[in-house]
Amino acid sequence: MRSAPPAETFPAHTPAAAQIFTTVLSHGPLTRLDAARRAGLSAAAVTKAVRPLLEAGYLVETPDQEARPALGRPASLVRVDGGRALFIGVKVTAGELIGVLTDLRCRIRIARHVPVPDRATEAVLTSLAELARELLAEAEELGAPVLGLGVAISGDVDRAEGVVRYSPFLDWRDVHLAELAALTTGLPVTVDNDVRALTVAEQWFGAGAGLSDFAVVTVGAGIGCGIVVHGRVISGAHGVAGEIGHVTVDPAGPPCHCGNRGCVEAIAGDAAIIRRIRETTGLEVADSAAAAALAHQGDEGAREAYARAGEAIGRGIATVANLLGPERVIISGEGLAAYDLFAEQIREAFTAAAFGSAAQCDVQTRPLPFEEWARGAAATAIQSFITPHDQRQSR
Amino acid sequence: MRSAPPAETFPAHTPAAAQIFTTVLSHGPLTRLDAARRAGLSAAAVTKAVRPLLEAGYLVETPDQEARPALGRPASLVRVDGGRALFIGVKVTAGELIGVLTDLRCRIRIARHVPVPDRATEAVLTSLAELARELLAEAEELGAPVLGLGVAISGDVDRAEGVVRYSPFLDWRDVHLAELAALTTGLPVTVDNDVRALTVAEQWFGAGAGLSDFAVVTVGAGIGCGIVVHGRVISGAHGVAGEIGHVTVDPAGPPCHCGNRGCVEAIAGDAAIIRRIRETTGLEVADSAAAAALAHQGDEGAREAYARAGEAIGRGIATVANLLGPERVIISGEGLAAYDLFAEQIREAFTAAAFGSAAQCDVQTRPLPFEEWARGAAATAIQSFITPHDQRQSR
Repeated sequence: MRSAPPAETFPAHTPAAAQIFTTVLSHGPLTRLDAARRAGLSAAAVTKAVRPLLEAGYLVETPDQEARPALGRPASLVRVDGGRALFIGVKVTAGELIGVLTDLRCRIRIARHVPVPDRATEAVLTSLAELARELLAEAEELGAPVLGLGVAISGDVDRAEGVVRYSPFLDWRDVHLAELAALTTGLPVTVDNDVRALTVAEQWFGAGAGLSDFAVVTVGAGIGCGIVVHGRVISGAHGVAGEIGHVTVDPAGPPCHCGNRGCVEAIAGDAAIIRRIRETTGLEVADSAAAAALAHQGDEGAREAYARAGEAIGRGIATVANLLGPERVIISGEGLAAYDLFAEQIREAFTAAAFGSAAQCDVQTRPLPFEEWARGAAATAIQSFITPHDQRQSR
Repeated sequence: MRSAPPAETFPAHTPAAAQIFTTVLSHGPLTRLDAARRAGLSAAAVTKAVRPLLEAGYLVETPDQEARPALGRPASLVRVDGGRALFIGVKVTAGELIGVLTDLRCRIRIARHVPVPDRATEAVLTSLAELARELLAEAEELGAPVLGLGVAISGDVDRAEGVVRYSPFLDWRDVHLAELAALTTGLPVTVDNDVRALTVAEQWFGAGAGLSDFAVVTVGAGIGCGIVVHGRVISGAHGVAGEIGHVTVDPAGPPCHCGNRGCVEAIAGDAAIIRRIRETTGLEVADSAAAAALAHQGDEGAREAYARAGEAIGRGIATVANLLGPERVIISGEGLAAYDLFAEQIREAFTAAAFGSAAQCDVQTRPLPFEEWARGAAATAIQSFITPHDQRQSR
């Protein structure tokens, strides 16, 4: 749902145009031939798709100086003109909004943090409008139009409708965030689940670039997962997908806020680790930093809580691997700060529970700051800008 | 791997041609406009893709008599000419091979069963050659060429390489079945995991037709799962996908042949149910039929074993729903014969463990005889025939 009228529209709303643009964005500069091969399109289809994008200035074509042949014309390289347009991406956390202004190549030009005094919709919208105003002022300096705002938020988010169906940590239900944010910012707004937004950034620029099947697993307050299958982030027929946090790993485990027992998140989420340490040690543990500090000091109860968490995460990742067989799983999230406390258990549990050659999946860690999540939000805004309307839901 | 030279080749090995052919096969007869819309292609692309297929006789175009306008030409309908070519599909089970001869529309023309005296590769290949000979003789009568053989087999199967990496029930490891079967039958051979083959049949003609995201869960000797995401069956980066049977649902559960504990299959597979009944009742239970009979007679121990199995299957399906958000899950397999003994527990465990709107997934049962699995194998042979070579692996 994009309620604000866009300042300008992408000149070719076809799947081929979106595909070529994304390919060049992610892998460019490329020759037309390379772009065609990577996108799986014919040379003719590329020529047709590229023309209006060159005319509108979103793509530029320049001679490839390095590949200048002895005779004849040099080959041309196609690239995205980063300076042609700007986008804003915002990651919503409990305490603050992290916003970035990116160019059309989704490179971060400016980052800003704005506090969120409370979790009510109005408070978040007010902070969001303030953040957008600041970044729009910066954009004026840069002299390019801002063509969209992406908002990344944890929970059950219906991107096609622009609605946050349920966000446990904000205690929101059925908030029409895209529509409301469009009213307060004057921009076309895309709202998506934060882990899915981060997964788009990883697919375009990160450890998922060039892979058709991979997953991003985030550990921290919640345990999330973004899944790419056949080159596209999945969002589920009913808006739910990647809920690794609510995969049951122990039916006799602790109760989860979702109503079940023994979910990955009920064992490995920050709150679960803190609760477990309090139970076993009787110590007051203020927060995740205190929990990790206690474990680093060698406290047995604290170490055991992290070990259990690692085992649950490893089992959850093995479940993803057994069902989907991704080429790579990227572990990220603020929980990586304590990664040394459960890395071994994640690895062991994954290896034990992965079935057959699913164990060949490359499991790696990648620390990604919240600015990178905000960049993912900007990437979803770029996706909305370039994607044909009837394909938005599934792209 | 298709070792035997094909009798003829598909005239247009492009993704668009394969897509249009599959669309018309599954939903035809269709006008070109309808075919374009369903396949997400332009009218020009359809015209280009359809021409060589019409010329080669794989597609035929006839006036739409029902939509004859008062003036001018009647609209044309494109359909697959079923009689143009034939395919053989074979499902391998422990005791016999089930083979079908299908036409190009994948309609079963003839079905045959051949016993397999033992599980050695040579024995299975001898039976396979005998079955193929019988069906090829029948094909002569029908007067159309047989253009491929599909073999569906349970286990870890690398379709692109034509290799059965590991089949627990046959005790096979790294058998180059496509190559061997091509030598004994003289046909181009496609080998795929049996549940994935069945899933192709469901996608083309069954309860998955028209859905871009669904799963088939089979219950019986093993617990398997075929998953369709973005309209394509997933096969995993390393050949493993859909291993719902080896999702851990209870880390304190019974040991599984895979080396883990508490896998869905270790609780809900036929052998697991029989073992559990023997343990709790002390009775000798010969097979699944005896186990089900005991439960139907009201034996508490037997009923409890089925209830546990149902709970494990329900949790497994919820895990698929939480991670992938499919629109529908189709439960099938020979285990459906005892479905009344665990249907309620499947439903309850699924509902309890499904997260948020993932619970909206339509879980339904569909009894599908082994002939339908063999038809799925024929469908994979048709896929190989029509699919561009470099895309075979992922299609």
